[in-house]
Amino acid sequence: MNIHAPVPVGVLGASGYVGQELLRLLAHHPGAAIVFATAESAAGEVIEGHRLGRADDAPLHAAEIVLSALPHGVSGRYVHDARAAGKRAVDLSADFRLSPEAVYGLTEVTRPRVAAAELVANPGCYPTAALLALIPLAQQGLIDASREVVIDAASGVTGAGRAPRRELLFGEVTEDFRAYAVGNEHRHLAELRATLAREGGFSGDLVFTPHLLPVKRGILETIHVPLTRVLDQATAEGLYQAAYHGEPCVVLTRGTLPSLKDVVYRNRVAIGVVPVANVRRPRLTVIAAIDNLVKGAAGQAIQNMNVMLGLPETAGLAC
Amino acid sequence: MNIHAPVPVGVLGASGYVGQELLRLLAHHPGAAIVFATAESAAGEVIEGHRLGRADDAPLHAAEIVLSALPHGVSGRYVHDARAAGKRAVDLSADFRLSPEAVYGLTEVTRPRVAAAELVANPGCYPTAALLALIPLAQQGLIDASREVVIDAASGVTGAGRAPRRELLFGEVTEDFRAYAVGNEHRHLAELRATLAREGGFSGDLVFTPHLLPVKRGILETIHVPLTRVLDQATAEGLYQAAYHGEPCVVLTRGTLPSLKDVVYRNRVAIGVVPVANVRRPRLTVIAAIDNLVKGAAGQAIQNMNVMLGLPETAGLAC
Amino acid sequence: MNIHAPVPVGVLGASGYVGQELLRLLAHHPGAAIVFATAESAAGEVIEGHRLGRADDAPLHAAEIVLSALPHGVSGRYVHDARAAGKRAVDLSADFRLSPEAVYGLTEVTRPRVAAAELVANPGCYPTAALLALIPLAQQGLIDASREVVIDAASGVTGAGRAPRRELLFGEVTEDFRAYAVGNEHRHLAELRATLAREGGFSGDLVFTPHLLPVKRGILETIHVPLTRVLDQATAEGLYQAAYHGEPCVVLTRGTLPSLKDVVYRNRVAIGVVPVANVRRPRLTVIAAIDNLVKGAAGQAIQNMNVMLGLPETAGLAC
Amino acid sequence: MNIHAPVPVGVLGASGYVGQELLRLLAHHPGAAIVFATAESAAGEVIEGHRLGRADDAPLHAAEIVLSALPHGVSGRYVHDARAAGKRAVDLSADFRLSPEAVYGLTEVTRPRVAAAELVANPGCYPTAALLALIPLAQQGLIDASREVVIDAASGVTGAGRAPRRELLFGEVTEDFRAYAVGNEHRHLAELRATLAREGGFSGDLVFTPHLLPVKRGILETIHVPLTRVLDQATAEGLYQAAYHGEPCVVLTRGTLPSLKDVVYRNRVAIGVVPVANVRRPRLTVIAAIDNLVKGAAGQAIQNMNVMLGLPETAGLAC
Repeated sequence: MNIHAPVPVGVLGASGYVGQELLRLLAHHPGAAIVFATAESAAGEVIEGHRLGRADDAPLHAAEIVLSALPHGVSGRYVHDARAAGKRAVDLSADFRLSPEAVYGLTEVTRPRVAAAELVANPGCYPTAALLALIPLAQQGLIDASREVVIDAASGVTGAGRAPRRELLFGEVTEDFRAYAVGNEHRHLAELRATLAREGGFSGDLVFTPHLLPVKRGILETIHVPLTRVLDQATAEGLYQAAYHGEPCVVLTRGTLPSLKDVVYRNRVAIGVVPVANVRRPRLTVIAAIDNLVKGAAGQAIQNMNVMLGLPETAGLAC
Repeated sequence: MNIHAPVPVGVLGASGYVGQELLRLLAHHPGAAIVFATAESAAGEVIEGHRLGRADDAPLHAAEIVLSALPHGVSGRYVHDARAAGKRAVDLSADFRLSPEAVYGLTEVTRPRVAAAELVANPGCYPTAALLALIPLAQQGLIDASREVVIDAASGVTGAGRAPRRELLFGEVTEDFRAYAVGNEHRHLAELRATLAREGGFSGDLVFTPHLLPVKRGILETIHVPLTRVLDQATAEGLYQAAYHGEPCVVLTRGTLPSLKDVVYRNRVAIGVVPVANVRRPRLTVIAAIDNLVKGAAGQAIQNMNVMLGLPETAGLAC
Repeated sequence: MNIHAPVPVGVLGASGYVGQELLRLLAHHPGAAIVFATAESAAGEVIEGHRLGRADDAPLHAAEIVLSALPHGVSGRYVHDARAAGKRAVDLSADFRLSPEAVYGLTEVTRPRVAAAELVANPGCYPTAALLALIPLAQQGLIDASREVVIDAASGVTGAGRAPRRELLFGEVTEDFRAYAVGNEHRHLAELRATLAREGGFSGDLVFTPHLLPVKRGILETIHVPLTRVLDQATAEGLYQAAYHGEPCVVLTRGTLPSLKDVVYRNRVAIGVVPVANVRRPRLTVIAAIDNLVKGAAGQAIQNMNVMLGLPETAGLAC
Repeated sequence: MNIHAPVPVGVLGASGYVGQELLRLLAHHPGAAIVFATAESAAGEVIEGHRLGRADDAPLHAAEIVLSALPHGVSGRYVHDARAAGKRAVDLSADFRLSPEAVYGLTEVTRPRVAAAELVANPGCYPTAALLALIPLAQQGLIDASREVVIDAASGVTGAGRAPRRELLFGEVTEDFRAYAVGNEHRHLAELRATLAREGGFSGDLVFTPHLLPVKRGILETIHVPLTRVLDQATAEGLYQAAYHGEPCVVLTRGTLPSLKDVVYRNRVAIGVVPVANVRRPRLTVIAAIDNLVKGAAGQAIQNMNVMLGLPETAGLAC
């Protein structure tokens, strides 16, 4: 299906959960080949057949595009090096998500800008699900800005990274469930608000509360939307169908609602909607689910890379 | 410590998760002794040393008080039989929760009425956590009825019962998380609204969305409360401390927030509060956690029984 | 990469865990296309884009090869129908595993016979791991038949099927672990003994004890092998490397030992060996791991199908 | 029931999983009261109502007995301090398990010596289950020393401690299962062999292989015993019933086999036996299960303490 030579890809930060997922996905990509992969703490180890080097020694010249899953605050510098070497890049950290230097890579929403971009900032995992759920409503002016949008999000623990911390031990997490960053203090909030304003024209208040789930992968967000007018089930569903018509990585559920098992190991967002009964003013509950490591990170990065390179958008991805 | 003979207790419906928990807790109760335990499908089996009989054959006369964990719709009839035999009763089903025939047994709130009651309706698991979290604010008129209270609740699977259903298989639930009864349709909503109005004087709108967690036990509720005025952290905490001063089964967290592992296998509710930043109007997030089988069912039933019988309120219970 | 038209494949029994895995894997197979998929209880449902029909109505003529994941005792009849219609078949049930009518499809061991077969009996999940671990030792006459080979195997719950049974509920399985079919009574034992005798020439005693793990997927077997002579670490590893040289779906660990997470969602067996210290007579412990749904069922069936059809052996499979 | 003042107990090492379990159990002990609890890394924190101090500052004089859950290699020194201060002690570390200085506290086997002891070495978790399963057979000379006893043990992760290590992260352990210390290298082996020889008179070979389970608590051991003569089901069960007649913390299963959920949160061992079919020489499979934190550590320590102090043996314990 691909008669060209595979595109040489460099991966920075390959030993964390997101980096490993990049290697796993790229291993089966029909149009790309890894030319280097780095990881400071794991340099020398072999993952998915690639011997990990150090970021400072990465042979940037050998790559056509660089994907960085380095930590926030570290990634920016190495991505700048790659850019200085004339390479296009997708940065999976938060370092460029609020920066005019990069295109925000929420593929379904910003596809044309991604195609032309030299540097793409890959969205955060929580914002990916929330934005894909809210933008269709926001763009239609359906969100009542006089009442707050409440987002309760729950994530599997791979979202918290692989560094050893007591609160992430199996003995602490299994059979447990807890909220964190309560009080609207999560660092993804700024990204969420800025993007919802820019892409959806909505600048009302959001209340975002993340939770830690005893699962490995997956994010499910229950999004409570005050509406400016009543939407019945069919109208609400039709609105999303129109917004995401033909999108290969968006699944709109009907009759059922999204669940983690519908999305894990896939590069998809699943979205379902239900009008709220037994209240005086119109509301819609929107449920959105993604795999935090795939559509919420490595998968969307490859989706963006494919768009940048003119490859089939879902090459190497199971949507 | 207890010089009286133990009170003879009968248990109806002892083979489900709640019934088993009743047997487990009563086995170590210093002032009560099980005189019969019934279970239709498991009649003849021995659980915690008690041979299970059938409800129709229960020797009601031998008991001083009857606890029923029979299913909704079935329990009512057997509880009526017990009442007709002159026995006091605690009904753990939903059959009397909205009925004037029974006292609603949210112990911390209705204790004096429970003490005098012949029949106590034990609260539902979700309402127990939500009501203990909301009533202190409601009683002070602090909840802004012009905006909805949003409650996202997550429960372990024992809340769904022990009958074999495909969607409750391990292979379906592990590594999964999903919402259900979305759109404000859960049958606990009426109980929640009625009690919050009666005990807290609040009759604004609630949006209640339950979720199924891949854990065995525990409920965590993240409750989003629009306020009539700003509450800072200390004031909010002080309000709950005043409301629950001296309560043995209420834990108010400070510095941390409740988590399932703080409450499982205990007859306690843990409550924590955080004012919401980055919004224009005052809001408080309240987190409440219980063990759905203990404070949410069997434990609270025994707590109510103790109050009814004049025993120490926490006899047989680890709070 | 595949310039021929995809081979039309029919799937019988597509709603269980194995059947779903067949659909999931075939969806990404570059050289095969599903022409029908059946499931009695779920007829009419759509899984992976295929509307399920009933086995009795399957358009056998449309397929070139039929894969059956129907239950044991049921599958045989439908596979005979397919054979009568002139179709080649891979049967994933136990119905032909001890029958001379079929070739036993342990691909790495019986590849040439699989290639020529009209009917392949796909091995059981437990035997797949045990046989790939034991055959290299057996073929070299290294297993001491005067002492028993002890196999402790642990499987994720998808191995027990999707029919609702109380003992498979999440509330029963999570945080639990138990043995079953204790006393050497598991129905896979006959398959294991017969194959080890036929392919390895070993007919000493085996003690096989399966366990149920609180995980979704994966089998790990800890195999205790009494040896006829001492094998040191390097010699033991070398023996397996020689036996499986060039095999794409066999991973021999060195320095580490196999773990479920190395194999899930992949069509591979991982095998590691350690000589036993602190005993008087020579012994080797062999650890083998597979994904019960992939190399233990659907994946190996597709591997066999590929061999039968002359397709690349790992087409559609991540090994 | 206890008219004496509670015995003052000191706890060293209270912040690990075992130490926390000691505090949890002692909190409900009717005849004991904690007078101090220490934990280096968590000094100043409050657990179960006790402010943790430092071991070097422990007011040893205030205690009548000291329980130490300090780490191996550290505990010995502090226990010697307690002994030098004239205090009796139960050491939960491995420091005295092979030492003539202490009585080995496998309560059901060494009860009279425990009662008289000044210093008790609490058994390791794995040996507790294995020894209680094997000693009755060993004492009767039923184990065939010409063939090895094979023990496959699986433990929940709390057995590996609370120190943060990457391989114990939830993301690494969930949905995984693996063996460790393969090749008969586990440090519990010496304790197991020495005790089985001393208490059971058996000095044949053992092969012990531990595994890490994705559960919080519990150990299940599948023990493969070559026999000197055939034992049928009834005879084998009768042998254990005779050996453990009247023991409050031993449960012998009949018809079913032990499972983790039968033992967690309880101070019991559950043992079940099955003769092995389909082999030429007599064998028995013995399954034994305990809660690694209770009967495998903190619970048995309290059981031993009760015996030492002349309290009811199960005071404070749910068996």
